[in-house]
Amino acid sequence: MNTHELREKIASGEFTKPTAGFCKGHVQANMLVIPKKYAASFEKFAKENSKAIPVLEVVKKSHYSQLLAQGANLLNELPAYDIFEDGKHVKTVNNIEEFYNEDFVFFLIGCSFTFENSLINGGIPLRHVDEVKNVSMYDTNIKLNDVDMFSGSMVVSMRPIKKDKVADACIITGHFPNMHGAPIHIGYPEMIGIKDINKPDYGDFIEIKEDEIPVFWPCGVTPQNVLKQIKLPFAITHAPGHMFVSDKKDSDYYVQ
Amino acid sequence: MNTHELREKIASGEFTKPTAGFCKGHVQANMLVIPKKYAASFEKFAKENSKAIPVLEVVKKSHYSQLLAQGANLLNELPAYDIFEDGKHVKTVNNIEEFYNEDFVFFLIGCSFTFENSLINGGIPLRHVDEVKNVSMYDTNIKLNDVDMFSGSMVVSMRPIKKDKVADACIITGHFPNMHGAPIHIGYPEMIGIKDINKPDYGDFIEIKEDEIPVFWPCGVTPQNVLKQIKLPFAITHAPGHMFVSDKKDSDYYVQ
Repeated sequence: MNTHELREKIASGEFTKPTAGFCKGHVQANMLVIPKKYAASFEKFAKENSKAIPVLEVVKKSHYSQLLAQGANLLNELPAYDIFEDGKHVKTVNNIEEFYNEDFVFFLIGCSFTFENSLINGGIPLRHVDEVKNVSMYDTNIKLNDVDMFSGSMVVSMRPIKKDKVADACIITGHFPNMHGAPIHIGYPEMIGIKDINKPDYGDFIEIKEDEIPVFWPCGVTPQNVLKQIKLPFAITHAPGHMFVSDKKDSDYYVQ
Repeated sequence: MNTHELREKIASGEFTKPTAGFCKGHVQANMLVIPKKYAASFEKFAKENSKAIPVLEVVKKSHYSQLLAQGANLLNELPAYDIFEDGKHVKTVNNIEEFYNEDFVFFLIGCSFTFENSLINGGIPLRHVDEVKNVSMYDTNIKLNDVDMFSGSMVVSMRPIKKDKVADACIITGHFPNMHGAPIHIGYPEMIGIKDINKPDYGDFIEIKEDEIPVFWPCGVTPQNVLKQIKLPFAITHAPGHMFVSDKKDSDYYVQ
């Protein structure tokens, strides 16, 4: 199934599942939709925290992607959307046409799934992929740089890496600066405020074996966490795992 | 002082100190000299263990460098040499002319000093440099790949790195594959057989602060350790810290 076929099935309501593993080699993106009055501040906030919130495309005065998938309708071509009011998740829907108004600004944000193929191809197997689970994610005490009303702390994803492959994992993912890039921390969860590595705040628990080191990357769940923390009056995001599958290839975002 | 001037002072006996900090930006190399009958095996052994023993130049049937410093006399242009018999260090001298015979093969081997400038320029200060001390080095349980009579385990150097700079340190040093490249281990000394991080086997003790992670690179002391372990009948090495200062620039060995 190519990306156009998948997005068509999503738009028609035939496909409503998580997108992991579909259209392999194509960039999948996080999405955040907010009213225009917050957009300039958020865009600046994202730039100031680009490791956690790497913006790939901003769509204004329209609901069609131009850059990531020319003409894709952002109102119905993601399999599920979360609606937030005053920072609280109020419902999950498969289509946001009824909420849309021209005041909306759409942010499509890089996702670490993009570098996972490169890790695997580089001889670094990923347990959550092998076990068909979600990656483990944690709230941390890593403070983001505040901009206007936007503030909060970083969410990270964790992958256990064999002890002699950790440097390789840094180098490989460092080539994808728009997809969170190299790790933000290696080895000691408690140093970034994670109290119990066995209890992720989001996603699934993934075992860390004796010859492995926990490696942490900034995570695209960070914006959701921020809008909860600051209780933003209204926002829409993709539902976790239900990403925007773009026409761009992972290799389009490989930086030498 | 340029590299020619420094080597002239060394040859004349005027300069006999460690070379760290001299001719900054120029490659300094480890040296191992062994009789021809062991050379082919050692060369293969080095290739099989190139992260620990990256050979930059082999000099045979001569005692003059061609590649690293055209015409430099390897018998007197290093400030100090260690003589080994049956794997035991028997003396340190400033000149090896009296030992020389045409049967000698000289191996000049990459050194992690070469990437230290790049780390510092990349915003990663190094405590042993700031405190004008030697780097901490440790024997490990990381087995080398055996070739003929050559076998043993890797020696590593350790640098404490601020927790949010560890990935950067991997990426920067990964660009110097001929100078040991990216770290061999990050974070847990006991996982590579180091019992007490506060007691280095070679070099100076360097403090690891609370917000730092110990990062380990393969070390050019590995060949010395090997020849001790296998009790090689005869060998000469540079004395620790008293390196061969070459005409090559660090940037000549930067690999994109």
